[in-house]
Amino acid sequence: MTGPYGILSPVWAGTPTAQLMSEESILRAMLRVEASWAQALADAGEAPAESAAAIAAISADPARAGISVEEIAAQSPGGGNPVIPMLAAVRYALAEAGESDAALHRGATSQDILDTALMLVCRDAAAMLLTESRRAGAALSRLSREHQDTVCVARSLTQHALPMTFGLRCAGWLDGLTQAIRRLDLAAAKLPLQWGGAVGTQASLIDSLGSQQTAQLTHDLAARLGLAPMARPWHTQRQVVLDLGSALAGVLAALGKAAGDVLTLQRPEIAELREPAAPGRGGSSAMPQKQNPVLSTLIRSAALSAPAQLSTLYLAAATAEDERPAGAWHAEWPSLLELTRLGGGAATRAAELFEGLVVRPDAMATNLRLSGDAVLSERLMARLGDSFPGGRRALQDVVKSSVVEGVGLRPLLEEQLGEQAGAADLDRLLDPRQYLGRTQEFIEAAVQDFSQQNLNQTPAQPEGSIDHV
Amino acid sequence: MTGPYGILSPVWAGTPTAQLMSEESILRAMLRVEASWAQALADAGEAPAESAAAIAAISADPARAGISVEEIAAQSPGGGNPVIPMLAAVRYALAEAGESDAALHRGATSQDILDTALMLVCRDAAAMLLTESRRAGAALSRLSREHQDTVCVARSLTQHALPMTFGLRCAGWLDGLTQAIRRLDLAAAKLPLQWGGAVGTQASLIDSLGSQQTAQLTHDLAARLGLAPMARPWHTQRQVVLDLGSALAGVLAALGKAAGDVLTLQRPEIAELREPAAPGRGGSSAMPQKQNPVLSTLIRSAALSAPAQLSTLYLAAATAEDERPAGAWHAEWPSLLELTRLGGGAATRAAELFEGLVVRPDAMATNLRLSGDAVLSERLMARLGDSFPGGRRALQDVVKSSVVEGVGLRPLLEEQLGEQAGAADLDRLLDPRQYLGRTQEFIEAAVQDFSQQNLNQTPAQPEGSIDHV
Amino acid sequence: MTGPYGILSPVWAGTPTAQLMSEESILRAMLRVEASWAQALADAGEAPAESAAAIAAISADPARAGISVEEIAAQSPGGGNPVIPMLAAVRYALAEAGESDAALHRGATSQDILDTALMLVCRDAAAMLLTESRRAGAALSRLSREHQDTVCVARSLTQHALPMTFGLRCAGWLDGLTQAIRRLDLAAAKLPLQWGGAVGTQASLIDSLGSQQTAQLTHDLAARLGLAPMARPWHTQRQVVLDLGSALAGVLAALGKAAGDVLTLQRPEIAELREPAAPGRGGSSAMPQKQNPVLSTLIRSAALSAPAQLSTLYLAAATAEDERPAGAWHAEWPSLLELTRLGGGAATRAAELFEGLVVRPDAMATNLRLSGDAVLSERLMARLGDSFPGGRRALQDVVKSSVVEGVGLRPLLEEQLGEQAGAADLDRLLDPRQYLGRTQEFIEAAVQDFSQQNLNQTPAQPEGSIDHV
Amino acid sequence: MTGPYGILSPVWAGTPTAQLMSEESILRAMLRVEASWAQALADAGEAPAESAAAIAAISADPARAGISVEEIAAQSPGGGNPVIPMLAAVRYALAEAGESDAALHRGATSQDILDTALMLVCRDAAAMLLTESRRAGAALSRLSREHQDTVCVARSLTQHALPMTFGLRCAGWLDGLTQAIRRLDLAAAKLPLQWGGAVGTQASLIDSLGSQQTAQLTHDLAARLGLAPMARPWHTQRQVVLDLGSALAGVLAALGKAAGDVLTLQRPEIAELREPAAPGRGGSSAMPQKQNPVLSTLIRSAALSAPAQLSTLYLAAATAEDERPAGAWHAEWPSLLELTRLGGGAATRAAELFEGLVVRPDAMATNLRLSGDAVLSERLMARLGDSFPGGRRALQDVVKSSVVEGVGLRPLLEEQLGEQAGAADLDRLLDPRQYLGRTQEFIEAAVQDFSQQNLNQTPAQPEGSIDHV
Repeated sequence: MTGPYGILSPVWAGTPTAQLMSEESILRAMLRVEASWAQALADAGEAPAESAAAIAAISADPARAGISVEEIAAQSPGGGNPVIPMLAAVRYALAEAGESDAALHRGATSQDILDTALMLVCRDAAAMLLTESRRAGAALSRLSREHQDTVCVARSLTQHALPMTFGLRCAGWLDGLTQAIRRLDLAAAKLPLQWGGAVGTQASLIDSLGSQQTAQLTHDLAARLGLAPMARPWHTQRQVVLDLGSALAGVLAALGKAAGDVLTLQRPEIAELREPAAPGRGGSSAMPQKQNPVLSTLIRSAALSAPAQLSTLYLAAATAEDERPAGAWHAEWPSLLELTRLGGGAATRAAELFEGLVVRPDAMATNLRLSGDAVLSERLMARLGDSFPGGRRALQDVVKSSVVEGVGLRPLLEEQLGEQAGAADLDRLLDPRQYLGRTQEFIEAAVQDFSQQNLNQTPAQPEGSIDHV
Repeated sequence: MTGPYGILSPVWAGTPTAQLMSEESILRAMLRVEASWAQALADAGEAPAESAAAIAAISADPARAGISVEEIAAQSPGGGNPVIPMLAAVRYALAEAGESDAALHRGATSQDILDTALMLVCRDAAAMLLTESRRAGAALSRLSREHQDTVCVARSLTQHALPMTFGLRCAGWLDGLTQAIRRLDLAAAKLPLQWGGAVGTQASLIDSLGSQQTAQLTHDLAARLGLAPMARPWHTQRQVVLDLGSALAGVLAALGKAAGDVLTLQRPEIAELREPAAPGRGGSSAMPQKQNPVLSTLIRSAALSAPAQLSTLYLAAATAEDERPAGAWHAEWPSLLELTRLGGGAATRAAELFEGLVVRPDAMATNLRLSGDAVLSERLMARLGDSFPGGRRALQDVVKSSVVEGVGLRPLLEEQLGEQAGAADLDRLLDPRQYLGRTQEFIEAAVQDFSQQNLNQTPAQPEGSIDHV
Repeated sequence: MTGPYGILSPVWAGTPTAQLMSEESILRAMLRVEASWAQALADAGEAPAESAAAIAAISADPARAGISVEEIAAQSPGGGNPVIPMLAAVRYALAEAGESDAALHRGATSQDILDTALMLVCRDAAAMLLTESRRAGAALSRLSREHQDTVCVARSLTQHALPMTFGLRCAGWLDGLTQAIRRLDLAAAKLPLQWGGAVGTQASLIDSLGSQQTAQLTHDLAARLGLAPMARPWHTQRQVVLDLGSALAGVLAALGKAAGDVLTLQRPEIAELREPAAPGRGGSSAMPQKQNPVLSTLIRSAALSAPAQLSTLYLAAATAEDERPAGAWHAEWPSLLELTRLGGGAATRAAELFEGLVVRPDAMATNLRLSGDAVLSERLMARLGDSFPGGRRALQDVVKSSVVEGVGLRPLLEEQLGEQAGAADLDRLLDPRQYLGRTQEFIEAAVQDFSQQNLNQTPAQPEGSIDHV
Repeated sequence: MTGPYGILSPVWAGTPTAQLMSEESILRAMLRVEASWAQALADAGEAPAESAAAIAAISADPARAGISVEEIAAQSPGGGNPVIPMLAAVRYALAEAGESDAALHRGATSQDILDTALMLVCRDAAAMLLTESRRAGAALSRLSREHQDTVCVARSLTQHALPMTFGLRCAGWLDGLTQAIRRLDLAAAKLPLQWGGAVGTQASLIDSLGSQQTAQLTHDLAARLGLAPMARPWHTQRQVVLDLGSALAGVLAALGKAAGDVLTLQRPEIAELREPAAPGRGGSSAMPQKQNPVLSTLIRSAALSAPAQLSTLYLAAATAEDERPAGAWHAEWPSLLELTRLGGGAATRAAELFEGLVVRPDAMATNLRLSGDAVLSERLMARLGDSFPGGRRALQDVVKSSVVEGVGLRPLLEEQLGEQAGAADLDRLLDPRQYLGRTQEFIEAAVQDFSQQNLNQTPAQPEGSIDHV
């Protein structure tokens, strides 16, 4: 495990996504880009194979070559990014090893290396995040079906509104997540290579390799790295980053909505849900009676942080001046990193949350009963409103006074309806199970939609492994 | 023209998009949803035709029915949204006219009306915005080709880096805009109906119309309004809003980047561009020598505001608790409105800006010459570095001393190279036109990509006009 | 009432603050600045009294002079702000009236007028907002004392933690509000004149009036307008705006926190609070049993929107380039306006909410009992942990098993403690009223702090009324 | 040096502020709070001195006690924060050492420890940041005076407007920074202890120590740590964090504005400024002619990121529900950390930037001449407008045609004015040095204001060093 460790970011501390986005991982990704390019050149006979091999060796074990995150980071302010000191360190290591740097960084600019490296780590992190999100989605699918008939109360502006089933609530959470997964899946599959040279014209490469060879090698490099080919350099056209960032924030919004609901539903007075227990989780030694909904808390914290991080990506895109920007590009990195870590952390917590969620149908029934028959008032208004003695207004008054005075609604109705009551078949009318609308249909469709999305997931780009380089 | 007028929002004041998003327009859209639904019910024989016709009449001329934005807005705090007082006003008008409200708002909830109305106004505004953006794109396509050979300097971290052509710069702006248009086109085409009833189960409709009829009528309503059919109610799953908001902010990022460049390039010391002049624009009576780049200024102001508005949409989605939220939904409206107005305003200004942009190739040539031959130093390093007396380091020193001492680079090179100079063919080597890389290819591809996008634009949903209602 | 009416901003629709920030109000404030300056010049004998009087007449009744918000807004894109067309309209009106414009706008720049006008409307709006916030604070003070002994449960991470009193919860809300009021009070009292001329040097004034007279008249203008004198022009140093915006957002954070708690505590399962009822508020005709917590919902919506608006102010300040910025300044206006309206709206809703808040001590008692004696487990651990048979770990297990198995804690304790139980004096130990810590002291201090703040409120700047102009 | 190292955060990588905010530093601060409290208890005879001493020993050398950032971070998700695993680790270490934990964490809650620890690291970081900012301010003061007479052009909406001096531009930057320093100085001096126990009532402490002793020890703890005493616990009233965050973002806004100007003024076509050169900074090996303005670039990147981080703090404050929040509190930490690191990094870069800034008066003169006499058009309009043949309109036309046709303004004026020209004393009228307004006065006042602020800086709280604990 390498840092940052996230001592104040418990939502992602220790998660696989955080590890994929570590400082060490970013350094390795930058080295991998250099090594892959060197190898591509060498394989095409455009650079000495020995130089490429030496670069690959350094890339494979930077520590052995004396290249450390700490040192590279400390020197990064000099040029404004870590690529410059990293190249110096690689050159030094090559020289120490008596190898030529002829295959190193040819025709590339710092931004080519760093943008491409970020696409690599984000691609891997997004894959992990999608796996975790699909675990969460599978759990929600199961819950949706298991509880398709578990009646509970639906709430609007915090108040009891109508009956629904818990399965439909899960299906709603699933709906949001499915859409978010679909979008991230698309965005992650399109992450491209960046390869434009100093100002996005590839002038240096064209000058030495010619147009066809340059195009071929650029395409080859994308394939080696498992990235999408680049339409054109995107040094200052950051729609790719915006798509990725929006998709990540979309997952966090979907999970945050669900986690917020779990937090409410785990309140002791409501008690319809309980997070899965696990050793060392959620307990308090000072107050042993407490069981804190820690997973939901962490997911929520990530969902509250994400929108601001996303806004910085859009701001950076909008202020990316000239052919390579002075500050806007640099502002993008930490927000993209943090957004990815937040998404990955939240997905991991959500998978665990939904896989073990404890559901309490009895509490749901109890809470539904709390509103008594009045929770069917919409139905009563529609069915009885016109025929009620005194009309809709009178029926409204009866419902209200039942609530205000805490009296059962049925006796009041029977009193007013008299003989009509039987005809009205109050028993059936006031049965929540008979007023669930398209609940079953919506649940089934949401589950199908999630399955479909799983089947259709964008095929991973051919993964270029470090071995091939 | 109806308000708000935007006295402090000059980027959108007076634009067609702003008019489509006016308070009056929103009120009318809400009424239109009610009227369309009433008519759908009546056409299916599920509600009295007279009631539907009366609702349509009110919807067509709300002022005549005594329904005003001012009054509805003033009463909106009572229920937290404008639908509730609007319904009361419609009911009052129906009663005044001696008509039944039997066809009004049946089985719907406030959120169904408001969400659907917002989709209607945003759909229309997005269409307008796309039209304006495509005007801007067409102008950029023209500029890209016209100036494919207009050599200028490319800048990195504000400094001169290498030669490029102004056509490629325009093609870069076009690239960003094309991608943003494509995304907004997709997002706008998918804007769906919202129709879930009190808690998203459609229980009331099912209860009175049965499942098949409800499904049929829901689908029918979407078609009448020209909206996409709804997969499932999305009261608290706001991915549709996130997609739309992200796409709008993406257009603003693309336009903001371009406007920022224009602002730089119109600085008197650079003077490569000039905004189109128009009577009453950009002048200063106190300082008659000034011509302010007002269009770019306004676009930039919108691009700076957009990211924060977008973040509120993501936050609202992440905190949309229960089956209908208490505050998160409400927070979404002003940000969505403002983001749409900003996008529309910026697109209108951008179309005008690029259609009339004054380009000054001579200034571009002058600025390029400012860096002298040193602007080709990348090429020199690659071509001459190894053979230079003293090697790369010596050549670097020569370039640097040329810059620092303000001496021409060529004599210094010739002095060092001696006889080699001829062989090196310095004339050709130092010709910016011979070091443009894939400039032409990239320009052509960007223009083609924009054309393709124009051809492929998502067919408009069948527009339900008010006449049909 | 003038627009915007806020059809989709129910939190501020119809509030006095919104009216103070209306488009009409902004236009009038700009005119007032021009009129005051003309009068200051005339009173000093530096401009013709007739011209100043004519400007004052137009300023007092712009409609009569044919100056409308709609027209000024429509022309504002030409110069990028509304001052330029407003001046043209005033000049036209003066000419029509046969009056000279010699006293008009002398030595001023658009930004002087607009910044100063914004300070005027914000000053007035902040005063209104502070009045409403102090109403809310007074209500909270009363509630804090009234319920200083009303025991309820304190919640941590949504779970029951320990007993507290409802008075302390109110005192907490009051604490946040008091600090926020104090900060806004300070920020609003310091809102300064802006008067720098074209580039902040006052060159034009110095050139015609000399240094001493310019300084004197500038100071005089601030006094006429009731604004703080300007240390130096602040065209691109926006700390004043940041202070104001931060203070507004601080009020919204304090109110948002309280409103969020009310929303939770009004949930039917918790039912400790109820928003005040009022005709036309919070009801649902379709579901007459519902009483929606509309005031809290609206406050919460404002609190969710505010942080993003604030971020735009900081962004604008950070990008205010040159001596007068191209876009950053323009981006500031809508966010400052909206932040002020949100703050004013939320304060008005909060005053109404807390003045009429219905408190239910019985529900508080019921909810506290829900956790049984276990809610005192912290005390048990401290008092009995060491002496308990098996030590702290054993006592933890007893508490946990009581919770998990839903058994009363007391019998379990008595069983374990045996004879010790009496000695432990379980009755006293498990009495929530005896474990409230410094509750009383904190309540009293919070109430005192609020009173103190009321007494110390920053004296209003000498209000320059329109009559004096 | 400990992590994070900031491989993608070059603005703060390697700065002292970043080190003060490192993961290790946070861990140590949390331990220090525990140790100080244990010692306070022991010194008052309320806890065994041996236990306190053992805790102090662990706090002084956590590694020796086997407590590492990596492990604590990895375990933090269990309870949602790092305090819980840290306490477990301390207990384990105490047990290993055969020492009692009787003095450990008594009556405290996790949030007391973490909030207080954050105040400690932020206090130290703010002190460092203020030192660096004052270095920057001192450099700006010097530049302001040195260049009080260095005439340059003032720009408005990117265009030449009027003459000013470079000293005034520096004084403007200084003005913003002085105000920001003043505010941060105040905010940092007020950072308080957090000490409320499980729900902010200090119930546990009162229960065992009584009210007076608890109050005394709480006050004592603040003094030991060098923090402000706490008025009342602020677990969910986060105005302190908002004040600190706003102040940090204010410094970043002030520095960002200045850095943005430097970036513009270092553009090769403008070339009025040049960042200080240093070995390894700003160079490009591939393009040796380039000297990138790296310091300004990094400052700008921080200024673009800060507003979003600040917005998260306000959001967290607005959603801090109950007595201790489930997610809002957790969302606050990373944003507060990053904002502090950004501020510290930017201040360090700014000090270096302004201390070594290379000023080019000749380029300033050249650029000013670029606009010719027209840059004085405001003066001409005021002085000659009325007497000009044809009046103001005719004079405007002359100025405009001079600009459009690139002809000198003076001959045109002389032609029109004829004999009047001499009377008009065109030489004097068109001398930029005679149209600088209150430039000198404003510079001097800004410098004085900065000095005053230095003298008045808030006395540091009595620093409690780890030795005393």
